[in-house]
Amino acid sequence: MALDIGILGYRFMGKAHSNALARLPMFFPDAPEINRHTLVGRDEEALAEAADELGFEHTSTEWADVIDEVDAFYNLGPNHVHAEPSIAALEAGTPVFCEKPLAPTLDTAEEMRDAAADADVPAGNAFNYRFVPAIQYAKGLIDDGELGDIRQVRGSYLQDWLVDPEAPWSWRNSKELAGSGALGDLGAHTVDLARFLAGDAAGEIARVSGHLKTFVDERPVEGEEETREVTVDDAYTAQAEYENGATGTFEASRVADGHKNDHTIQIHGTDGSLKFSLERLNELEYKRADGRGYETILVTDGSDPYVEHWWPPGHVLGWEHTFVHENYEFLSAVRDGEEFRPSFEDGYEVQRILNAVERSDESGQWVEP
Amino acid sequence: MALDIGILGYRFMGKAHSNALARLPMFFPDAPEINRHTLVGRDEEALAEAADELGFEHTSTEWADVIDEVDAFYNLGPNHVHAEPSIAALEAGTPVFCEKPLAPTLDTAEEMRDAAADADVPAGNAFNYRFVPAIQYAKGLIDDGELGDIRQVRGSYLQDWLVDPEAPWSWRNSKELAGSGALGDLGAHTVDLARFLAGDAAGEIARVSGHLKTFVDERPVEGEEETREVTVDDAYTAQAEYENGATGTFEASRVADGHKNDHTIQIHGTDGSLKFSLERLNELEYKRADGRGYETILVTDGSDPYVEHWWPPGHVLGWEHTFVHENYEFLSAVRDGEEFRPSFEDGYEVQRILNAVERSDESGQWVEP
Amino acid sequence: MALDIGILGYRFMGKAHSNALARLPMFFPDAPEINRHTLVGRDEEALAEAADELGFEHTSTEWADVIDEVDAFYNLGPNHVHAEPSIAALEAGTPVFCEKPLAPTLDTAEEMRDAAADADVPAGNAFNYRFVPAIQYAKGLIDDGELGDIRQVRGSYLQDWLVDPEAPWSWRNSKELAGSGALGDLGAHTVDLARFLAGDAAGEIARVSGHLKTFVDERPVEGEEETREVTVDDAYTAQAEYENGATGTFEASRVADGHKNDHTIQIHGTDGSLKFSLERLNELEYKRADGRGYETILVTDGSDPYVEHWWPPGHVLGWEHTFVHENYEFLSAVRDGEEFRPSFEDGYEVQRILNAVERSDESGQWVEP
Amino acid sequence: MALDIGILGYRFMGKAHSNALARLPMFFPDAPEINRHTLVGRDEEALAEAADELGFEHTSTEWADVIDEVDAFYNLGPNHVHAEPSIAALEAGTPVFCEKPLAPTLDTAEEMRDAAADADVPAGNAFNYRFVPAIQYAKGLIDDGELGDIRQVRGSYLQDWLVDPEAPWSWRNSKELAGSGALGDLGAHTVDLARFLAGDAAGEIARVSGHLKTFVDERPVEGEEETREVTVDDAYTAQAEYENGATGTFEASRVADGHKNDHTIQIHGTDGSLKFSLERLNELEYKRADGRGYETILVTDGSDPYVEHWWPPGHVLGWEHTFVHENYEFLSAVRDGEEFRPSFEDGYEVQRILNAVERSDESGQWVEP
Repeated sequence: MALDIGILGYRFMGKAHSNALARLPMFFPDAPEINRHTLVGRDEEALAEAADELGFEHTSTEWADVIDEVDAFYNLGPNHVHAEPSIAALEAGTPVFCEKPLAPTLDTAEEMRDAAADADVPAGNAFNYRFVPAIQYAKGLIDDGELGDIRQVRGSYLQDWLVDPEAPWSWRNSKELAGSGALGDLGAHTVDLARFLAGDAAGEIARVSGHLKTFVDERPVEGEEETREVTVDDAYTAQAEYENGATGTFEASRVADGHKNDHTIQIHGTDGSLKFSLERLNELEYKRADGRGYETILVTDGSDPYVEHWWPPGHVLGWEHTFVHENYEFLSAVRDGEEFRPSFEDGYEVQRILNAVERSDESGQWVEP
Repeated sequence: MALDIGILGYRFMGKAHSNALARLPMFFPDAPEINRHTLVGRDEEALAEAADELGFEHTSTEWADVIDEVDAFYNLGPNHVHAEPSIAALEAGTPVFCEKPLAPTLDTAEEMRDAAADADVPAGNAFNYRFVPAIQYAKGLIDDGELGDIRQVRGSYLQDWLVDPEAPWSWRNSKELAGSGALGDLGAHTVDLARFLAGDAAGEIARVSGHLKTFVDERPVEGEEETREVTVDDAYTAQAEYENGATGTFEASRVADGHKNDHTIQIHGTDGSLKFSLERLNELEYKRADGRGYETILVTDGSDPYVEHWWPPGHVLGWEHTFVHENYEFLSAVRDGEEFRPSFEDGYEVQRILNAVERSDESGQWVEP
Repeated sequence: MALDIGILGYRFMGKAHSNALARLPMFFPDAPEINRHTLVGRDEEALAEAADELGFEHTSTEWADVIDEVDAFYNLGPNHVHAEPSIAALEAGTPVFCEKPLAPTLDTAEEMRDAAADADVPAGNAFNYRFVPAIQYAKGLIDDGELGDIRQVRGSYLQDWLVDPEAPWSWRNSKELAGSGALGDLGAHTVDLARFLAGDAAGEIARVSGHLKTFVDERPVEGEEETREVTVDDAYTAQAEYENGATGTFEASRVADGHKNDHTIQIHGTDGSLKFSLERLNELEYKRADGRGYETILVTDGSDPYVEHWWPPGHVLGWEHTFVHENYEFLSAVRDGEEFRPSFEDGYEVQRILNAVERSDESGQWVEP
Repeated sequence: MALDIGILGYRFMGKAHSNALARLPMFFPDAPEINRHTLVGRDEEALAEAADELGFEHTSTEWADVIDEVDAFYNLGPNHVHAEPSIAALEAGTPVFCEKPLAPTLDTAEEMRDAAADADVPAGNAFNYRFVPAIQYAKGLIDDGELGDIRQVRGSYLQDWLVDPEAPWSWRNSKELAGSGALGDLGAHTVDLARFLAGDAAGEIARVSGHLKTFVDERPVEGEEETREVTVDDAYTAQAEYENGATGTFEASRVADGHKNDHTIQIHGTDGSLKFSLERLNELEYKRADGRGYETILVTDGSDPYVEHWWPPGHVLGWEHTFVHENYEFLSAVRDGEEFRPSFEDGYEVQRILNAVERSDESGQWVEP
C-alpha cells in the first residue's frame, strides 16, 4: 500500500523533495510506493500552480488538516514555521521529515526533539549532504578505522551571493525569520557533516569559540526605495574541541567572492586524511596510511554507496541526487518502523553547537554546547 | 495534446531517456506534454518489467507496429539495429531520435541520413554532451568570437573498464555488432563535440590520420570456459586538419587505468583557450584574451544555459541532466516542426570522419573524410 | 667595496642564506658585492666543515668577536640564541638579519625591537615568504585596490612530520628552546604573510581567540631508551578580527597527514579574492571583479616581481629563491642605508599576535595583542 | 684535481649551466671540483661581460683553441653550431656536453653520434628534464614493474609566446638556423622523456605519423619595418607505435594560449598510470594497481632522487635544479670515465624520430625512424 505524503512548502526545498519522490520508483524500486498526496501553503493560487508542477493530487492551506491524513509529513517551509506543524504531526503519530536547521532557536529545537522522543515514528532532519556517495564512502573509511584516531576536523562553507552591498534584503537576512545567517543556514550543514563523519570516532564537540560578522548592515528592499536592517551574520568562524581532544575549525561566508556553493570538509587522523568539496561532489580526496599524497577518487563505481541505483562508473551525479537518497532512507524507515538519521535529536545537537557558537560570540569566551 | 513516445531499447540508454522524459514536466514546463506510450523489445518478460520500471503504458515486440502509432520514435537499441527501424519510421513520417553512433557502417549511416533528408520531420542523433551547460556556454564564447580564430583542437576520451585482460567479452568487443570499439563508442562523442564547438569557426575536418589498436585480442565469455575474439579497437589515436588549417588531435581508450569517463576537449584560438572535462562537467576552464591563465568557471548560474530550470548557483548537475536538455530540445522541435541538431546529417558527418580514421589506419596515409 | 657578512648558524637556515649570498652576483648584478666572511658556531670541527661547504673565509666560536668586524650580522641560530647577539650587534651599529620568529618570548622580542629602534641600521626579520614572486604580485593587486575592501583572511600551514607518535623528540618540541611549536614555527610565517598582504588595507589584527593542542605528550629520544616531554603545541587554531572589521582564521599543524609544507593564504575582498599555496609557489589563484572564477596565474613572466632576474616565462622557481630575493633587498638596504622590511618591528608585531593567541588559549577568552 | 670547463655560449643555456656548476660544491660535495675556465663566444665585449657575470676565468673567440685546453667542453650555442666544435672536441679526446637538440639535421646528428662512438670519453646531450626528481622517481616505478606492461604514452609541450602574429621573428623561426620549430625545440624534450621513461619497457618507437603546422607565415623583424618568413613549424602533432605495440601521441605548440611551459607526459600500463607536468615539476600523479585514482605525490622527500642534497620535505625545487643534477651526473662520469646518458646516441635517436615525423608530414604516410 502506498504511503501518502503531505508537504508543507513548495519553493526550493519543496521542489527538491518532490523531484526526489518522483524519481524513486524508477531508480529505487525497493523504496515504498508513495503518493504525492497534499501540498500545503498559504497562497491558494501559487499553491495550485505548484501542486500541478510538482505532481500533487490535493492542496490545502491548513496544515492542521493534513497532518493526520497523510502517512508522512514533510515540513519544508521557512525555519520559523518548522516547529508547530512538526510537533503537531508527531503528536498525531505521523512521521515527520523537516528541513534544516531544525528551528530558529535552541529552545524551539529542544521542544521538537522532545516531541520526536515522545513519538513512536521517525522524525528526520533533512541534512542531505550525509547522502552524497563520497561522504558515505568517507564515513565507511572512518568507521573501518582507516584514518586511525581523529585529530583534526576542518569545515568551511563559502558562498558569494551577498558580496555586493546592493544585493537585496530577503528573509534570510532577518534574525526573526531565519534565526541566524550563514551560521544557521550553512554552518548547520557543516556541523552535521562533521558530526556524521567524525562523531563516532572523536565524540561530540565539547566546547567552541565563535565569531559572527555582519559586513553589510542594511540592504535595499527589492522594488522599494528603502533599505532594511540585516540582523544576522554574513559569515561566522569557530574553533572547536572534541570529547577525544581533537580540534576543529569551522566557518561559513556569504561574501566569499568566487565561491558559489563551496562546502568543504577535511579530516586528519593518525593514519590518514580525507578532503571533500561539494562543488566536486563526485570526488573524494583520500590520503591512505601507505600512500604519499591524496588520491582523487571518483566515487561512482557500482560498489560505492547508492551508485548501483544510477549509472555506470564515471557518469557523475548532481546535487539533487542527495535528496533521492535521503528520501529513500527516510521512507524506508517509515515503512519499516525503523530509526532514521539524521533525526530531530541530531538536528537538536547541531543547534546546540550553533547556539554555543553564538553564545561564545557574545561572551568572548569558549563555551560548552 | 500530448506526444506519444515509442522507445526501442530499455537498457542503459532506454533508462537515461525515460528518466529524462519523466523529468520534463517538473523542470521544463514549456516542453510538450508527452506520454511514455510504448516500449519495444524482444524478450517479453524483460520488456514488461522494464515498461513497469520506466513508466510505459504499452509494450510491443514489433517495432514495425509502433512506428506509425507514435508521435516520436526513439531508437536506443544497439548500433546494429539503428538503421532499419529508424528509416522505416522516417518513411512513415514519424520523427526519430536515435542513439549514437548513427550506424555500424558508413554506408548504413548514409542511408539513414538520406532517409532523414527525404522526411519532413526531425531526425535527431542523440549526442547528449552538446547539452552540458558548460559546453553550451563554451559554444557561446566561440560564437561570440571570444577565442578569435580557432587554431588547435584536442579531444580525448579515456576509460579503463577493459584494462584487465580478464574483463569479459561483450557485444561492444565485436565489429559485427558494434561497428568499432573505442573509436565508434567514444570517438563519436569527441568528434561530435569538436564539430559542435569548432565547426562553425574552423570548418569541417578536411583530412585525418588515424591509428587503431587492440591490446587484448581475446576475452573470456562470462559464465563459459571459452574466450572470444576481440574484433574492435581498445583505443584509437588520430590527427586532423580542419578546412581553415587548424590542427586537431583525438584519441580514446578503454584501457587508460585511472580514468572512468574522462572526456576532455580543449580548444586554442588566437585570442583565448577553453578546456572541459566530463568528469567535472559543471566546470569550464577559460583563458580570456585579457587573462593570464585559465579561469575555473562553475557554470551553474541562472544565466547559464538551461540552469534556470534547475537549482540555484553552485548546486551542481550530473551526467543525466544532459538527456533532459536534449529531450527538451528534440521534443520542442517535434512539436514546432523545427530542425533539431545534432541531426542524422550531423551523425553521418561524424561517421564520415570516424570512417576516415579507420581507412587511414588501414592505408597508413592521411585520408579525406 | 664589498660587504663582509658574518653568519651565526650553519644548519638549515645557514645553508639557505649562504646559498642565497652565493647566487646574488650572477642573478642580481646590482646587489652589493659581499664576502662570506665569518661563520660562527660552537663546535669547531663541524664549524670548519660547514665553512668549507658554505664558502666562508673565517670561522669563530665567539659571536661577540664577530659582530663589529662585519658589515652585516646574520643570526640564523635556534630561537633561543636570537636575542643577545642581535642586540649586541645592533648596539655596535652592525646591521642584523635574524631568522624568524624573532624570539622565544614576547618580552625578548620587545627588547630586540627596542634595540633595533635605537640603532640606525637595518634590522631585518627574515620572513622569506614575503619574497615569493606570486606573493609580491598579490600584494601589488591588493595595493592597487583590485580586491576592494578586505573582508576575510584565511591562513593555514600544514605539515605532517610529527604524525607518528614515534617520531623523535627534538628541540622544536621544547618550550624552553623553541618558545612554542607549530604556533611560533609555522604560525609566525602565516601571520607575517597576512600582515604583509592585508595589513595596509585592513589594519592590524585587533583581537584574537586561540587554541593550542599537543596531540603527542612525549616522544622517544633518538638513540636512547627514554622519552622526553613535548612542551609545545603540535597544532594551533585561531580566529581574528582586524581593525577594519575583517575576520581571520589561522591554523597550523605538524600532524596533518598528507601535507608536507602546505602554507596557504586566502583573502576575500569586496571586489575579488586571492589564494596561494606554498607547495605550488609559482602560482596565484585570482578571482577578479569581472571574472567568474579563480584564474590560475603562473607568476613567471618577465614583468612579475624578481622574475626578470631569472629565467624565461614558465621556468619555475623553487623555495630557495625566496632567500635570494630577501638577501638582495636586505643587503641593498644595508648598502643604501635604507629601511628593510620585514623589520624587527614587524617581527615583534607578529609575536604580539602569537602571544595573544597563547594568552587566549590560556584564558579561554578573546584578547588584544 | 679540478676539472677545467670550457663553455661555448653565454645566453640562456650558458647561464643555466654556469649556475649549475657554481652550485655543485655546496650541494653535491662529492661532485668533481671544477673551474669555470674559459667562456667562448664571438662578440668580445659581450663575452667579457658574460664571463664576469658567469664567473669564468678566461674568454676566447676561438673554440678550436679551447677544446683541448679543457677537461670538458660544453656546447651551448644555437643548434647550427653544435656539430663542428663538438666533433672536434671529441676527436681531441675531450668530453662534450651539448645542448639539445643535437643538430639541425639528422645527417649532422649522425656525424656527431659517430664521433662520440669513436671517442672514448662521455658525450652527453643535455636533456635536462630526465633529471627532475619526479621523473627519476617515475622511472624507478616503471623499472620496478609497478605499471606493468606499457600500453599508451602521451606527451605534450605547450607554450604561447608566438600566439600573437606580431610577436617578433627570431632565429627560432628559421629552418636554416634552428632546423625545425616546435618539433625540434620542444618535441625533442618530449621524445627524449618518453624514451627515458618508457623505452626500456616498451622498446623504441617503431613508426610515426606526423603533422607540422605554421600558423603565422611571416613575422615582423624587431626594430625594422620589414617582416621575415617563418620557415619552421609553430606546432606539430604525431602518433607513434612502439616496438611492443604500445601507442603514443605527441604534440607541441608555441601558440597554445594560456600555457607557458606546459610539458606533460602521461603513461598507461596494464597495472597503473603516471602523469607529470613541468609547470608543477615537484609533483607526480600516480595511479597505483591497488588505488582508485591518481595520487598527487610531492616528490620532495629525502628518499626521493637528488632531494637529500637540497632541503627538507616540501621545500620545492625549481626548473634550474635539473641542470645541477645533470651536471653532477655528467661531471661525475667525466671524472670516473663512465658512460653518461642521455648520450649523443640518445640525442641521435631522438632526432631519428623527429626526422621521421617530418618525413611523415611530407609524405602523408606512416614512416619508420
